[in-house]
Amino acid sequence: MNRVFNFSAGPSMLPLPVLEKAAAELVCYGESGMSVMEMSHRSPDYEAIIADAEAMLRRLMNIPDNYKVLFLQGGASTQFAAVPMNLIKRTGKADYAVSGQFSGKAFKEAQKLGYDVKCIATTKDDNFDHVPVITKDMIRPDAAYLHICFNNTIYGTKYPYIPDTGDIPLVADMSSCIISEPVDVTKFGVIYAGAQKNMAPAGLTLVIVREDLLDTAEENMPTMLEWKTMAENGSMYNTPPCYAIYMAKLVYEWILGLGGLDEMKKLNEKKAAYLYDYLDNQDYYIAPVKKESRSMMNVTFVTGDADLDKKFAKEAGAAGLKNLKGHRSVGGMRASIYNAMPYDGVVALVDFMKKFAAENPKA
Amino acid sequence: MNRVFNFSAGPSMLPLPVLEKAAAELVCYGESGMSVMEMSHRSPDYEAIIADAEAMLRRLMNIPDNYKVLFLQGGASTQFAAVPMNLIKRTGKADYAVSGQFSGKAFKEAQKLGYDVKCIATTKDDNFDHVPVITKDMIRPDAAYLHICFNNTIYGTKYPYIPDTGDIPLVADMSSCIISEPVDVTKFGVIYAGAQKNMAPAGLTLVIVREDLLDTAEENMPTMLEWKTMAENGSMYNTPPCYAIYMAKLVYEWILGLGGLDEMKKLNEKKAAYLYDYLDNQDYYIAPVKKESRSMMNVTFVTGDADLDKKFAKEAGAAGLKNLKGHRSVGGMRASIYNAMPYDGVVALVDFMKKFAAENPKA
Repeated sequence: MNRVFNFSAGPSMLPLPVLEKAAAELVCYGESGMSVMEMSHRSPDYEAIIADAEAMLRRLMNIPDNYKVLFLQGGASTQFAAVPMNLIKRTGKADYAVSGQFSGKAFKEAQKLGYDVKCIATTKDDNFDHVPVITKDMIRPDAAYLHICFNNTIYGTKYPYIPDTGDIPLVADMSSCIISEPVDVTKFGVIYAGAQKNMAPAGLTLVIVREDLLDTAEENMPTMLEWKTMAENGSMYNTPPCYAIYMAKLVYEWILGLGGLDEMKKLNEKKAAYLYDYLDNQDYYIAPVKKESRSMMNVTFVTGDADLDKKFAKEAGAAGLKNLKGHRSVGGMRASIYNAMPYDGVVALVDFMKKFAAENPKA
Repeated sequence: MNRVFNFSAGPSMLPLPVLEKAAAELVCYGESGMSVMEMSHRSPDYEAIIADAEAMLRRLMNIPDNYKVLFLQGGASTQFAAVPMNLIKRTGKADYAVSGQFSGKAFKEAQKLGYDVKCIATTKDDNFDHVPVITKDMIRPDAAYLHICFNNTIYGTKYPYIPDTGDIPLVADMSSCIISEPVDVTKFGVIYAGAQKNMAPAGLTLVIVREDLLDTAEENMPTMLEWKTMAENGSMYNTPPCYAIYMAKLVYEWILGLGGLDEMKKLNEKKAAYLYDYLDNQDYYIAPVKKESRSMMNVTFVTGDADLDKKFAKEAGAAGLKNLKGHRSVGGMRASIYNAMPYDGVVALVDFMKKFAAENPKA
C-alpha cells in the first residue's frame, strides 16, 4: 500500500486511522455479527451509532440544545431548494450574497422555484477574489433569511467574519469548512454542509437548524425536504445514509481524540500558513485571492501560463500529489488541505512547487 | 468473527465476498493510492467505477439503450415526490394502485403536492394480504402514468404479473425485489428502487427511466429531483453517493459471477420454496399472504398469539437469526431473504421454527 497525498476538493482525504478502523470492522462490527452496512437502521446497534454521531458533533461544535442536527441525503445542492422551501414563508422573500459558484447556484435555485429573492452583494466583477462585506443595512428588513456560502471551494475564499444580520436568520453553506475550526453556531439560523469534504464519504448532508425555524415549511413541498419531518423522526423518516453517518462518527471521534476543534484549527492554520507563506515569498506563482478572504481549506494559485499550469498538475500527480488541478471553471491549481491532509502533505507540495519553478523558468 | 443470519427488511445482508473485497481495498483501491471514499467523483478511477456499475447493471437487467440509468440519493421516499413532478405534466393526472404501506405513501405524497391523483385499486380492506388485479380499463385513459409498488416489503406480497397499461407508462417501485430475478424492463416507463435491500448499503437510489419520459418535468421543481438533469449529467450534477455506487458495482459483479439473474432467481426460488413449503405443511404458524401474491423476498408469518410472536423474535435473535420481528405496523414475523441470504440461513430458520413450535405448544 502506497498512499498518496490527495488534494481533491471533494470527495477528499479521510484520516488514515479512520479508514483503517472502518476496514477492520467492515465485515463484522463489534459483537453484532454483521457489517454496519447491513444493520437495520432501527436496530439498537445502529441507533447507538447515530446517537453517538450526533452527540459527538454537538460536543465538537458546541451546538446548543435549541438546534436540531439532521443527517440527510442529497448534498448541499438539495439544500439549495430546501432552504427557501422551509424558510421563505416566514416573510415571502429572502436575500442572498453571491461569493462564488455554489452561492450563485443556491440563489438561482431559489429563483427557479419562483421565489422573491434578491442578491444583495456579490464579488463577481472581481472574479470572486474576495468575499463581500455585508452589513445589516444591506439586507431587506423583511427578508426571511440571508444566505451565504461561508467557504468558497472553487475560488479559495472564506468569510473572515460572521455577517451581523440582527434578527434575520443567517443561513450558511459550510460544506468546505465544517468542523475545520470552532464556529459560533448561535450566530446562525441554519448551517448545512455536504459531508464529502471534511466529514465523511459523499452521500451525507448535515443540517443544523434552530428549532424556531422548523414551522414555516411550504405545504406542497416534497416531504423528504422538510426539515421538521426529519427533525421529528430523528433523521429516520426513511432509511438514512447509515454507513456515511457511521464514517462521520469515526471522523468526529478522531477529531475529539486530537483535542477538538481548537486543536484542529491549530493544525489547519499551521498547514495553511506554510503554503501561503511560501506563496507570499516568491514570484513564480500567483495567489489570486485577497489576503483577508483567504480560505484555510482551499488554496488557489496559478503560474500565469495555462500550459505550465497543466504541466504542473500532471507532474505533481506523477509525484504522488494528486488532484491539484483547479476547478474546470477557473483553471490554475487548487490545493484542498482539509482536516485529513497531513502537514507532511503540504511540505511535500511546497517542495514540489519549488522544484517545478526551478525546472520550468518562465519565458 | 461470527456472522449471523440477518433477516432484516433493509438495510439487509450483503454478500460476504462483496464485504470481504470492500474491506480488503477500503484503505487503498488498486493502484490509486487512496480509498474509493476519497476519490474525486470526476477522477478517471472513479469514472471507471460508475461506468462499470452502469454497464454491469445494464447487462444484468438487460436494460435497453433507450432507458437511462440514474444513481441518485434520497431513497424511494424522495422518488414518491419526483415521480409526479417529472411525469404528471404529460396529462395533468395520474393513477395509483395501493397494495401496502409504501405504495400508500407514494399516493399520499402526490396528493400532498396538490396533484390530481386517483387510487384505482387497493387491497386495504383485506389487510393487503394480496395484490390487486389491475386491468387496463381501470386506468383513466388520460392518466400520465400508473404507479405500483411491485414487491410489498411489509406485507410480503408481490405482483405475480406485470399490469398491462397499454400506452400509459407503468411506474414501479422495486426497492425490495430489484435484481432478485429477471424482469422485462420494456414493460415499464420507470423503475426505481432504494438500494438498501438487495443492491448496496443505504444512501443510493436507482432510477431507470425511458428517455421519452424525461421532457415533462415541472419548471419550478427542485433541480436535484429532475431526472433529465441527472441523466444529462451522468448522475453527476452534484457529487453522487460514490461509495454506495461502488458497493453496488461489487454486488452486480457478484451476481454476474453467479450466472446473472436467471441463476439468482433459481437460488431465490429455492430459498423461498423451502420456507413456504414448511409453512404450508404445518399448522403452528399462519402465513397470511394469499399464495398467488407471495413475495420471494419477504416472507411473513404469525403464530396467532402476539406474546408468542414476541418470544419467537427474541429467541431467534439469541440463536443468531436476527431481525425476524415483523414491521411495527403489522406485528408478527417477517423473514427477508434477499439475494445475499444464504440457503443455509433459511434452513436454520426452519429448524428454529420447528424447535420453537415443539417447545411452545399453544393453549
